[in-house]
Amino acid sequence: MIIVLKPKITKRQETAVLAEVRKLGYQPHVIRGVERVVVGCIGDERSHPTLETLMTWPQVENVMRVQKRYKLVSREAHPADSTVNVRGLVIGGRHFHVMAGPCSVESERQLMATARAVKQAGATVLRGGAFKPRTSPYEFQGLGEKGLKLLAKARDEFDLAIITELLSEAHVELVAHYADILQIGTRNAQNFQLLAAAARTGKPVLLKRGLAMRIEEWLLAGEYVLANGNPNLLFCERGIRTFETYTRNTLDLSAIPIVKAESHCPIVIDPSQGAGRAGLVAALCKGAVAMGADALLIEVHPNPAEAWSDGAQQVTFDGFARLMSELKPFIAAAGREA
Amino acid sequence: MIIVLKPKITKRQETAVLAEVRKLGYQPHVIRGVERVVVGCIGDERSHPTLETLMTWPQVENVMRVQKRYKLVSREAHPADSTVNVRGLVIGGRHFHVMAGPCSVESERQLMATARAVKQAGATVLRGGAFKPRTSPYEFQGLGEKGLKLLAKARDEFDLAIITELLSEAHVELVAHYADILQIGTRNAQNFQLLAAAARTGKPVLLKRGLAMRIEEWLLAGEYVLANGNPNLLFCERGIRTFETYTRNTLDLSAIPIVKAESHCPIVIDPSQGAGRAGLVAALCKGAVAMGADALLIEVHPNPAEAWSDGAQQVTFDGFARLMSELKPFIAAAGREA
Amino acid sequence: MIIVLKPKITKRQETAVLAEVRKLGYQPHVIRGVERVVVGCIGDERSHPTLETLMTWPQVENVMRVQKRYKLVSREAHPADSTVNVRGLVIGGRHFHVMAGPCSVESERQLMATARAVKQAGATVLRGGAFKPRTSPYEFQGLGEKGLKLLAKARDEFDLAIITELLSEAHVELVAHYADILQIGTRNAQNFQLLAAAARTGKPVLLKRGLAMRIEEWLLAGEYVLANGNPNLLFCERGIRTFETYTRNTLDLSAIPIVKAESHCPIVIDPSQGAGRAGLVAALCKGAVAMGADALLIEVHPNPAEAWSDGAQQVTFDGFARLMSELKPFIAAAGREA
Amino acid sequence: MIIVLKPKITKRQETAVLAEVRKLGYQPHVIRGVERVVVGCIGDERSHPTLETLMTWPQVENVMRVQKRYKLVSREAHPADSTVNVRGLVIGGRHFHVMAGPCSVESERQLMATARAVKQAGATVLRGGAFKPRTSPYEFQGLGEKGLKLLAKARDEFDLAIITELLSEAHVELVAHYADILQIGTRNAQNFQLLAAAARTGKPVLLKRGLAMRIEEWLLAGEYVLANGNPNLLFCERGIRTFETYTRNTLDLSAIPIVKAESHCPIVIDPSQGAGRAGLVAALCKGAVAMGADALLIEVHPNPAEAWSDGAQQVTFDGFARLMSELKPFIAAAGREA
Repeated sequence: MIIVLKPKITKRQETAVLAEVRKLGYQPHVIRGVERVVVGCIGDERSHPTLETLMTWPQVENVMRVQKRYKLVSREAHPADSTVNVRGLVIGGRHFHVMAGPCSVESERQLMATARAVKQAGATVLRGGAFKPRTSPYEFQGLGEKGLKLLAKARDEFDLAIITELLSEAHVELVAHYADILQIGTRNAQNFQLLAAAARTGKPVLLKRGLAMRIEEWLLAGEYVLANGNPNLLFCERGIRTFETYTRNTLDLSAIPIVKAESHCPIVIDPSQGAGRAGLVAALCKGAVAMGADALLIEVHPNPAEAWSDGAQQVTFDGFARLMSELKPFIAAAGREA
Repeated sequence: MIIVLKPKITKRQETAVLAEVRKLGYQPHVIRGVERVVVGCIGDERSHPTLETLMTWPQVENVMRVQKRYKLVSREAHPADSTVNVRGLVIGGRHFHVMAGPCSVESERQLMATARAVKQAGATVLRGGAFKPRTSPYEFQGLGEKGLKLLAKARDEFDLAIITELLSEAHVELVAHYADILQIGTRNAQNFQLLAAAARTGKPVLLKRGLAMRIEEWLLAGEYVLANGNPNLLFCERGIRTFETYTRNTLDLSAIPIVKAESHCPIVIDPSQGAGRAGLVAALCKGAVAMGADALLIEVHPNPAEAWSDGAQQVTFDGFARLMSELKPFIAAAGREA
Repeated sequence: MIIVLKPKITKRQETAVLAEVRKLGYQPHVIRGVERVVVGCIGDERSHPTLETLMTWPQVENVMRVQKRYKLVSREAHPADSTVNVRGLVIGGRHFHVMAGPCSVESERQLMATARAVKQAGATVLRGGAFKPRTSPYEFQGLGEKGLKLLAKARDEFDLAIITELLSEAHVELVAHYADILQIGTRNAQNFQLLAAAARTGKPVLLKRGLAMRIEEWLLAGEYVLANGNPNLLFCERGIRTFETYTRNTLDLSAIPIVKAESHCPIVIDPSQGAGRAGLVAALCKGAVAMGADALLIEVHPNPAEAWSDGAQQVTFDGFARLMSELKPFIAAAGREA
Repeated sequence: MIIVLKPKITKRQETAVLAEVRKLGYQPHVIRGVERVVVGCIGDERSHPTLETLMTWPQVENVMRVQKRYKLVSREAHPADSTVNVRGLVIGGRHFHVMAGPCSVESERQLMATARAVKQAGATVLRGGAFKPRTSPYEFQGLGEKGLKLLAKARDEFDLAIITELLSEAHVELVAHYADILQIGTRNAQNFQLLAAAARTGKPVLLKRGLAMRIEEWLLAGEYVLANGNPNLLFCERGIRTFETYTRNTLDLSAIPIVKAESHCPIVIDPSQGAGRAGLVAALCKGAVAMGADALLIEVHPNPAEAWSDGAQQVTFDGFARLMSELKPFIAAAGREA
């Protein structure tokens, strides 16, 4: 770590900092600059206590980290791209995947019709919420296990892998029993207990970025999965919260090249949640493909106007088929296979 | 709800909207304006499906809610201020309360010294984390039950109520057994399963605002507590995430008059997390008192530079005693009792 | 406009609102809903005073606009895409354009070398700052007119159109004399006097989005250009300010389909300013092309490490040539010509 | 500056960085840490070119500044509080000042009535916009010079100092002729040409914080005023843009202790723009006073519902008189004189 001292401090104040640095296990190294004295502190920042606590001292102006805080998810730890195997599908490799399905599982009829439609159009993974985190307690909270059973039935019938959200530690075994990929939603992106519990099932985990998460924090949340012995991690960007109100969130597509630079894990883009408006989904998908995303997660519904949740962002069957066809030249341009 | 139709749509497109509105249980009411047709839809927005799903229709320009989505926490439901009773302390009444203590419980010695210091300076509630949500898996995660036992011991010795964070559904019984107030942290502010489980213990719940939560969403998260049969809810503002980097977060003090206007529940301010810098805590506390907060939640540590978590924002014993004394005239000016 | 009244108000309070609505030139239309009374106010919101001022009245809960505030820039006003002609180049048509060059004009040698390099790689417009808005008064402020003359010389030598920033009303004539496109920077995006003055020159105006501008406000700023008689407007997204610190700004690529939906004007993407990191530029350009941008604005420098401004985001000649070649399949996939 | 090198780079790559550092005028100082090599670069960061440009080099991981970028506005440059003299009023001293008046000057009758009311209630400075920056070109743009003349008349009649906004370089002489304080609005906070022109008049300048300005950038914008020879600078916080939509902006009251710590210049709070809702103004004023603000800037109008601009945030005469009386105990508690 680097400690910047304030100008015009006493020798004694400086010595006290050096003593504290040594006490906390680092070796201080003083550089006298033009206006400031800087102390380089040698020692592993991940195994020693942080020196940022010295910020409370009157003679300290700033404390800066040098090392990155994440380890197992980092590109340094694993220079090649890692891939995640889901029922034989390889995510993060040459094949580009599309995960699609309704926001919520509502009924057998709705789910089966959607599964058929997305399969025909080229999706390889079926999404659908059985347990739904809802902003208001008065909104539909999901079909629960009944929904999971319907997803399993759709998997069997249409040979699609299944992704569904896990939102409670109490449901870990239940959801892991049915799902092929466990989705951790944006509201639980720093629910570290849930992350650890999901990781321990060994199932692939798709970790959505929290609404207000810096990329560093998102990578560190992913670190909870790998540090709990599960290498099958997918990052999923789904929009961050900004001041813009035209869209529900601002989809941060720059997360694609950044995650690719900092980590070896695959990255998935969810344009439906990001935009909150079905009319923007196609353009966002094209951008995501061109920028190097490994997969898309798209909400599709037989009749969005009557969806039980988030209808405004779900696309129709026709819209989805058209989108899949429009994406093809971009998938090819990106050097992937559809 | 209000539906704004696009200009130049056909009669048939308009009729389709009216039919769908009726199908979803509302009674449509057409207003023909200068440039737009607006449809007022009469019906209870909380018991009927939302019409926002109609946003996917090409003839619909916008859909706006009319009713507020929260109910039990709202000022309309309970025009008088509500109060929360904690071991005989009344929060939300005439007496102004200060909750203080270390970020993390680290040892018996640290906790007892801090409890003594904050009690002497006038605090009525002792805070201290036993289970800590940490951004990185490599950081100190709390003493767990050992920490809870130390808190209980401090309570007995110094006659202070105890507040501590609950961060796992698996710990609900354990934490509720020891704590007088259950704190739900910012990262779990929309972990609805945890909120419901905390509510069902009947213990007072202090709900921190999520880093990216609009006040409406925060009130709705609080609604999960009241809707689960627990009226003892305290809202706690602790800073929201903005572009500013001088502070860790931006403490949104305007939340005080807003929560007072929209809800009957008490509001607590946490300036330590908000600023992330001990040097700003005193000014933020004064502002909070003047603006009508019901209590403060302040981090105090015997030696912040050696704290095991968040040292940069914790104040010393001397600093805390000075702060409590400086607050007195502001508490009086606000018509409260210290 | 729509006025939502509070519940439980008196008949007299309601009547007062209706009287005020009429006084301000609207015809009120009352809808009695389940919990709220809503007043639809018929009248042109752009020629009458806003009713939002009624928000100060105790009986009023909310006031909502129905009409869009922008007019000339809107897709409604001009359903077809508009194009901007710059020295014979048509921006907004089938041909995809790349504007490239240094952040600041530093010397004849630097500019000519860059002009040659970008021309060879396929750029059609040369960018370069002669007057630079700098966060600190101690940073390089640009070469001024000398820089403009160098740009003109490069235009003649390499047959490139010239875009340069206008940042002062005092320079309007001077800059318009040399430039083919006047760039209004992010810090002046709501400097309406400057916008109007730029518009009156008749030269094409490229309007960057302000760091904290909602898209609606950006369109309204563009409205100042068209309302001053100049239809040659290009919108340019260059990143908005969010909490993320990995990048300098968050490039909001969703602005592309939104501006295309709301307006007829061409849209340009500036990935250099958006990311602030040269390593992200290529991916962002690919995304922009795929999503339907009409042009790119890219910073290129012979030796970024020694650039006099914003070196971290400028790409080298080799990097630019490689990028132009990598973009080709995406331009084709987007149905454009390179 | 501090340069952090990437791990596993070659000796030659390291040497190249050291050579470039020397070439740009700094003396490099290498520290070999556990995982990273760090280069401390000794030299004045304000007179040498920035090393941040090295971020484009593949072997460089990060570059960090050590020095603060502002100089004349900094507390280091002038350890005591500075004060600004306005027609004999001393802002920044023991006396607490209130600046009040309408958002826009609309008519003689409106302005005189307001001037009388605010004077009676205790304000010492009259505010009022003659030139108005409006988001839409179709909104009222101010009375111009006629408005300035009315302000001058009100000054004579009621012995109030006058503050009004300057929004064009073309108006500098005109506005400076009438005004006692030149206000630079939030949209022009980084219009450096305007700042310099305002500074050169010698009149006190009140600089509002831009909607998306970090405090460091705001201080640097203030530096443009002092660096142009004018020490009479007032900073004014008026709300920053965040994701919250209940308020128009989020008033960042923590700016008060931060500006007091970093700078010697007085700080003024504008709660009207910050909240955008008159009902929140009183609480925000109390907070500002308690936290150490030197003055308030409050919008007051005889009939807010009929105001020509921003009616929703203006308070009535009665409301203002009540507010001034409610503020008294807080002003006393803050050790100031009303």
